[in-house]
Amino acid sequence: MRAIGHRTWAIPEGYLPPRGRPEDRALESHEAACVLNAGDEDAHLELRVFFADREPAGPYRLTVGARRTLHLRLDDLRDPEPIPRGTDYATVIRSDVPVVVQHTRLDARRAESALMTTLAWAAAEEGA
Amino acid sequence: MRAIGHRTWAIPEGYLPPRGRPEDRALESHEAACVLNAGDEDAHLELRVFFADREPAGPYRLTVGARRTLHLRLDDLRDPEPIPRGTDYATVIRSDVPVVVQHTRLDARRAESALMTTLAWAAAEEGA
Amino acid sequence: MRAIGHRTWAIPEGYLPPRGRPEDRALESHEAACVLNAGDEDAHLELRVFFADREPAGPYRLTVGARRTLHLRLDDLRDPEPIPRGTDYATVIRSDVPVVVQHTRLDARRAESALMTTLAWAAAEEGA
Amino acid sequence: MRAIGHRTWAIPEGYLPPRGRPEDRALESHEAACVLNAGDEDAHLELRVFFADREPAGPYRLTVGARRTLHLRLDDLRDPEPIPRGTDYATVIRSDVPVVVQHTRLDARRAESALMTTLAWAAAEEGA
Repeated sequence: MRAIGHRTWAIPEGYLPPRGRPEDRALESHEAACVLNAGDEDAHLELRVFFADREPAGPYRLTVGARRTLHLRLDDLRDPEPIPRGTDYATVIRSDVPVVVQHTRLDARRAESALMTTLAWAAAEEGA
Repeated sequence: MRAIGHRTWAIPEGYLPPRGRPEDRALESHEAACVLNAGDEDAHLELRVFFADREPAGPYRLTVGARRTLHLRLDDLRDPEPIPRGTDYATVIRSDVPVVVQHTRLDARRAESALMTTLAWAAAEEGA
Repeated sequence: MRAIGHRTWAIPEGYLPPRGRPEDRALESHEAACVLNAGDEDAHLELRVFFADREPAGPYRLTVGARRTLHLRLDDLRDPEPIPRGTDYATVIRSDVPVVVQHTRLDARRAESALMTTLAWAAAEEGA
Repeated sequence: MRAIGHRTWAIPEGYLPPRGRPEDRALESHEAACVLNAGDEDAHLELRVFFADREPAGPYRLTVGARRTLHLRLDDLRDPEPIPRGTDYATVIRSDVPVVVQHTRLDARRAESALMTTLAWAAAEEGA
């Protein structure tokens, strides 16, 4: 299958709300970077996390298999360090093959959930 | 009327929440791919659905008439197979004429609904 | 001031939920097309509304003054005809000068509101 | 690190809901323009705010440090004037180096919060 997308993506808005309802992981407050690798080669990703008042964290390294999607929970990142909750951040994702990236937040701080999503920003050079 | 849009679209974020309130179809948890075909020729679509841990499903074939919009409920897809609920997925849509695609989720798992939407990602080649 | 944006925009997702709380117009279920005209000439807009099973409605004609923004409530359109509630639709906006368009829905069908927004899709030719 | 993004961004949809729950600043109704400056030079920003029925306000001047993100609360702007609550507005951001901009609204007017987000619109010229 043909690879589609871009190699560099950015998500300026990042914020992990304080922990919500730990009894159900799917409904816990979280952010996800959803990565689609529609092509026939594995995608090797490097994430860097930017903050308001310190140098960036990372790189975090991940692989998305050929013809697979990875819905990465950003609160799951551990190596080299977890992203702190309650802190503004931003994310840059680079891949060695074209992928497509969408960002979603579930906020479960109140009794009801709130959802938001957007495509990430893609640098202009596009994969074939 | 002039066709506008692109022939290849991708939606990295896909998740059908477990079934909510079956008494009202419009308020049941669902995802929709909203397709606009503003041109004077019917659009023949092929959808492929990508997963985290298996090969893609599809193609699903659909037609959007000339000068029509189709708000496709992804939980309605049956042929060749339904998309399982509670599972991460991603979608690629190809059309033989330019269309525009937007993705929306209604999450009705809690007492109140949550909504999110984004334009899908479009490959660069654009219809006239 | 320099005009920025595009002359053709599309919003595939459109749906006016059944009327919510008429006691407060700002909290009533609605959709808005937010148009920014940052340039020094008035923008003359033509909207066309597409449906699932009938020919498009319109054109609806609107003006956005130079250096002004118009947050157009789509449920306010009357001429040539109102958009019916509870019906899937899509919108194409054409302008004689470059503008930027964003789409927002407030859904007040339940006790709590839900919000969603996205930039509209823009045709490639861009204003200076 | 390589600068990524664009120098001109626009957010057509702007609305600061009437003040919600002042006891917790993070849950108060607000809008944020999240700016990522991934490059090695400080970004000097100029914001202009557009209204429905008066000339634009601004410029508001801000700096985002090299390799930093700024999640700017638009209700915090004071100089030259605050943005009034309950008023439709739009925002244009210009930067002297490439940045990426995303817009988010938290609406806390009701007992539960609602969230929405989108990338801002970017003018075509892209930073290296």
